[in-house]
Amino acid sequence: MKLKNSQSIIYIIIIFAMSFTATAQKDYKLWLQYESKTDREIITKYLNTIQGITILGNSETLKVALAELDLGLENMLGKKITHQADNKQNNSIVIGNKSSLPLALQENLKSEFEKVSKDGFIIKTITSKGKKNIVITGKNDVAVLYGVFNFLRLIQTNKSIENLAIVDSPKTDIRILNHWDNLDRTVERGYAGFSLWNWHTLPDFIDQRYIDYARANASIGINGTVLNNVNANALILTPQYLEKVQTLATAFRPYGLKVYLTARFSAPIEIGGLKTADPLDSNVINWWKNKVAEIYARIPDFGGFLVKANSEGQPGPQNYGRNHVDGANMLADALAPFGGIVMWRAFVYSEHDADDRAKQAYSEFVPYDGKFRDNVIVQVKNGAIDFQPREPFHPLFGAMPKTNTMMEFQITQEYLGFSTHLVYLPKLYQEVLESNTYRKGNGATVAKIIDGSLYNNKITGIAGVANIGNDLNWTGHPFAQANWYGFGRLAWNPYLDSEIIADEWLKSTFSNDENFVKPVKEMMLQSREAVVNYMTPLGLHHIMDTGHHYGPGPWVNNLSRPEWNPVYYHKASKNGIGFDRSKTGSNATVQYVPEVAKLFDDVTTCPEKDLLWFHHLSWDYKLKSGHTLWDGIALKYQEGVDEVAAMNATWNKMANYIDKERFKEVQMLLNIQNKEAKWWRDACLLYFQQFSGKELPKGVEKPTQSLEYFKSLKFPFAPGN
Amino acid sequence: MKLKNSQSIIYIIIIFAMSFTATAQKDYKLWLQYESKTDREIITKYLNTIQGITILGNSETLKVALAELDLGLENMLGKKITHQADNKQNNSIVIGNKSSLPLALQENLKSEFEKVSKDGFIIKTITSKGKKNIVITGKNDVAVLYGVFNFLRLIQTNKSIENLAIVDSPKTDIRILNHWDNLDRTVERGYAGFSLWNWHTLPDFIDQRYIDYARANASIGINGTVLNNVNANALILTPQYLEKVQTLATAFRPYGLKVYLTARFSAPIEIGGLKTADPLDSNVINWWKNKVAEIYARIPDFGGFLVKANSEGQPGPQNYGRNHVDGANMLADALAPFGGIVMWRAFVYSEHDADDRAKQAYSEFVPYDGKFRDNVIVQVKNGAIDFQPREPFHPLFGAMPKTNTMMEFQITQEYLGFSTHLVYLPKLYQEVLESNTYRKGNGATVAKIIDGSLYNNKITGIAGVANIGNDLNWTGHPFAQANWYGFGRLAWNPYLDSEIIADEWLKSTFSNDENFVKPVKEMMLQSREAVVNYMTPLGLHHIMDTGHHYGPGPWVNNLSRPEWNPVYYHKASKNGIGFDRSKTGSNATVQYVPEVAKLFDDVTTCPEKDLLWFHHLSWDYKLKSGHTLWDGIALKYQEGVDEVAAMNATWNKMANYIDKERFKEVQMLLNIQNKEAKWWRDACLLYFQQFSGKELPKGVEKPTQSLEYFKSLKFPFAPGN
Repeated sequence: MKLKNSQSIIYIIIIFAMSFTATAQKDYKLWLQYESKTDREIITKYLNTIQGITILGNSETLKVALAELDLGLENMLGKKITHQADNKQNNSIVIGNKSSLPLALQENLKSEFEKVSKDGFIIKTITSKGKKNIVITGKNDVAVLYGVFNFLRLIQTNKSIENLAIVDSPKTDIRILNHWDNLDRTVERGYAGFSLWNWHTLPDFIDQRYIDYARANASIGINGTVLNNVNANALILTPQYLEKVQTLATAFRPYGLKVYLTARFSAPIEIGGLKTADPLDSNVINWWKNKVAEIYARIPDFGGFLVKANSEGQPGPQNYGRNHVDGANMLADALAPFGGIVMWRAFVYSEHDADDRAKQAYSEFVPYDGKFRDNVIVQVKNGAIDFQPREPFHPLFGAMPKTNTMMEFQITQEYLGFSTHLVYLPKLYQEVLESNTYRKGNGATVAKIIDGSLYNNKITGIAGVANIGNDLNWTGHPFAQANWYGFGRLAWNPYLDSEIIADEWLKSTFSNDENFVKPVKEMMLQSREAVVNYMTPLGLHHIMDTGHHYGPGPWVNNLSRPEWNPVYYHKASKNGIGFDRSKTGSNATVQYVPEVAKLFDDVTTCPEKDLLWFHHLSWDYKLKSGHTLWDGIALKYQEGVDEVAAMNATWNKMANYIDKERFKEVQMLLNIQNKEAKWWRDACLLYFQQFSGKELPKGVEKPTQSLEYFKSLKFPFAPGN
Repeated sequence: MKLKNSQSIIYIIIIFAMSFTATAQKDYKLWLQYESKTDREIITKYLNTIQGITILGNSETLKVALAELDLGLENMLGKKITHQADNKQNNSIVIGNKSSLPLALQENLKSEFEKVSKDGFIIKTITSKGKKNIVITGKNDVAVLYGVFNFLRLIQTNKSIENLAIVDSPKTDIRILNHWDNLDRTVERGYAGFSLWNWHTLPDFIDQRYIDYARANASIGINGTVLNNVNANALILTPQYLEKVQTLATAFRPYGLKVYLTARFSAPIEIGGLKTADPLDSNVINWWKNKVAEIYARIPDFGGFLVKANSEGQPGPQNYGRNHVDGANMLADALAPFGGIVMWRAFVYSEHDADDRAKQAYSEFVPYDGKFRDNVIVQVKNGAIDFQPREPFHPLFGAMPKTNTMMEFQITQEYLGFSTHLVYLPKLYQEVLESNTYRKGNGATVAKIIDGSLYNNKITGIAGVANIGNDLNWTGHPFAQANWYGFGRLAWNPYLDSEIIADEWLKSTFSNDENFVKPVKEMMLQSREAVVNYMTPLGLHHIMDTGHHYGPGPWVNNLSRPEWNPVYYHKASKNGIGFDRSKTGSNATVQYVPEVAKLFDDVTTCPEKDLLWFHHLSWDYKLKSGHTLWDGIALKYQEGVDEVAAMNATWNKMANYIDKERFKEVQMLLNIQNKEAKWWRDACLLYFQQFSGKELPKGVEKPTQSLEYFKSLKFPFAPGN
């Protein structure tokens, strides 16, 4: 890695020296920039339609909705909009929930109210008695708040607000962030600084970020947050910490954001003084009942528990000869009287089970189908291994028709270059959600299982492992804000197209100028395929370096558990490469329905993007392109590098469309990504070349360093580990 | 600790919801707010005098000086000032170093240039040939930059800029921050989030905070920074990290901010592969020579090393039977060819030495006087124990006339309530700097030793252990920014009055309105005495809870080393309280010159503020006030609590003078301080009452909790530990 060109540093210094505050402000404001419009015609048009605001009701939620509307409209349109009494409005915005609306309005909106679900909103232009107003409403105040944010987004993205008739309901119940935040403020797999939660100054100091965090979440419909790590510490359940949690819950409440906690299964021992945490032990059962009651006394709308049990060293019911159902239902029974739920993670694999790790969650959980309580929802990662750049959809989706099942996506980029790689994840999420499980026949996408439409589930939800930290810009990479945004939008509506989401985000965050939006949107949409190509093409997976998962480590073979080693996953040898999960191998394919299993089993029908996930093939295997497998792998790595170079080139043309500071930040990060894409290509190809014994094909650049050099790289303080 | 009043949380939410960006911006901007003036008359007056800017030269430093002038003037005066060619100026500002000035100007400024030292600046209004301009100059470009910041401060504080004739030179050479930042970004004794240095994304990503950090330091004359913890990790000296350090050094350079590193004494073993780190071993000597050369190849103006050796478990020359002189001089010899220095800490006390910990540094170091190289400077904490709310000045100051000696202050509030207590530290610094050592007779203040004027030292300096982290507002408490600011100002000029510094800071940071400045300044000036009173009145010290030093722990007596236990320091028993350091006790007083020793030895002349530091006295001892010692202690604790209540009351009247957000933040923090002052009072008095066996005197509030309750409090995740 060569010496820094000091001229370029100086250039950056001068930019930053002249801007000081601007960047801090813009980076911090996320997609709620509310940039002032400059086109007088557009402004006039909006102002003609928005001459006043009438608020019906005075709940805390409506107050923050009004504050948001004031802030957004004044910033964007340059004019403070008058607040009006109820009966005066014309060309106004009327906000209030259904019951607060005058009867005539309720009548007018009858069909919309029939269509809209509990948290959905209605935005409708209503002309009556010669007066024309925009009504933003819903069945409760949080729905109204969602409507307000949606309305502001129309203006942020320069959409027309004439003759509006929007009815939009969330398709899932639980739209939730999982913070893997520890009580010492380190964040497991966190790459954006440290935890937002300053436990030391809570409950007495309310950091403005808590409020801005809730605002940002509400603006995209996220309605829940698990504050602490799934690798849990029982102390969070002590009065000392619950008092702090209570303050956060109170701060978040106006924004419709419910607080959840992870429950350390052994808490009854660690903080309860019991001898056991056996879920069938009456003392344990009572301890949890009392603990839950104690929590609800503080937080009446507490959401419930997220539990990682008997997984990667976490305690669980199996420690006492019980099973996941016993554990989950015991907690669920304690929560049920208060309306709380248990999110029970299915991310389990045993060090004592020699079977393919990809199969273990399915094997363990499917027999439990129908046995979980109604207020339990099983939380399943999108793929069967662990948040790889690409995985086939998890076979558990659809395999438990009588069990509430929710999605766990990872927003933080544990395996995708941390926060220095621009990877637009909604593209990944969409690919998973659109996957056809063939459960109950063709067209049964993962989305239909997640939103409950296929099996008519009691509870539905999507969780995202947060990429948020105390970095000034929240997410480390300015474009990682798009992943938080996109996660929220897809949790609300798993059928949304990731391109539309990118469009909204770019316009709200940067600019409405199509000369900017179009190429940058293309860059975003391409970015996910790029990372797959330069890290793990053609179905390769989990070949990241050990522990921290930063950079390539396909050579790692010395970890205590076999399935923690990259060599377990790629199985490269002179004979070929890939994990045979077909009938002739681990037979993981049998966990899918026959139509899907057949597709994956047959090397000729298996999508090439998943090829080495399911098959071990010789280096000379012929790809559809006509290339040998070795050449194909090498060319894919090169393609990934080329795609990043193209992203750099695209971005370098954008200097004139946005502020210099964010332009430069992204430019620096793309340079890192460029460098690291080459590192991935060179390290992996040099390593695999030992087995293939073949030359690099034409078009693939020669590595600049030796394999030994790449193997020698050590990152003892890589973040998030 | 009672349940939070949720109404007050809601109030805060509404405030923050309506302001979003404003706070982030103001908190982040420190004392460089450059708030726009609203008084037209003032603006007009300034604009009449500033009609143009002429820059002479184009170094990076002058470029950032110009950028700062542009930013500051435009923000404050609402007008972009024209840049002019050299010969056109009238009513202009001319900035450039001495050699760039036209000869006539050089001649005009002859006497000023004779007076000013290397880094000092001149700001002078010069009328010549009917043209009147303000010249900002100095002997080098960094001096010019200092002048520009000083000039901007005049406008920030509404000072006249007519007929300026300022010559201001720094009185010390090394004005330096010590960051106790670890490579994993935790900060030892850090209470403002985590380390600014994102080692993972360095060297390729230059966070704007690096630049703003350098700007803020330059604005107050700080010219050096030690990036990493004195409890050092040798990895910082590997090429992988030096490349990152190089980038920071390059980013800081235009601002005259030099980079220094801590040197782990055992680095030759840990990263050099040697068998020993013996400073007299030729391989070790060579290893350091090569390492230093390697650093200077990357960073030509590298400042040098800070070393904590043979102290609290850190390795050092004594591990090899050598002494501090051997260790320091070996490193100094490696650095000398490049102009680097060694700052060698005198903070030593041995677990094998039963003598009073307060005496050990003096005992160890005084015999070495005259033996250190010219480029070694011994860094001495302000007091002999460890950054207490109050300590008598360290007896080493003045005791080594032939040794360069620098001050180590702590800006981070390890023993002063972390970042939630408002304590204005320049008041403490000033007390130490004004202390009369009587070395070479009356009037030999600590300041005169530090600035080299007493002994004519080769190098002089003041270090401050930074209170800076990645919190949005840099320092956790908005008023802790004043401690960074005040440290810098006093490092520049140890004779500055802390009241003047508070005045400057308040006006630059908040407002020029005297209705705000006057009461808040009084509050700041009182705050240091308040913390002494509610934590450690009358010379008590080091009775904080163990390890993290958060809250009271006078009862702690179970730590492995006796001098780590609070009971070692207060020695409370039925017979009385206090540490006898007089002739009849540990005889620590003998380390001062006889005039001072006598003063401290005699209980009737010993200042009462230091009473229990030097004397063990019975509970019935009569204080000057006529109160018994027990009553006096109790009344002091109450006084501290009352002072914090008064600070609260003062602040609560300030809502109309500043932005709502910072007002509310400080209000919340003062509420915490209020609560914790009472905690200190109650816990300490209940504990000491066990020994005194006496009732609380009239006027002292009854404790609200039992001693057992206070002893039961545990803070496993207290920050900075």
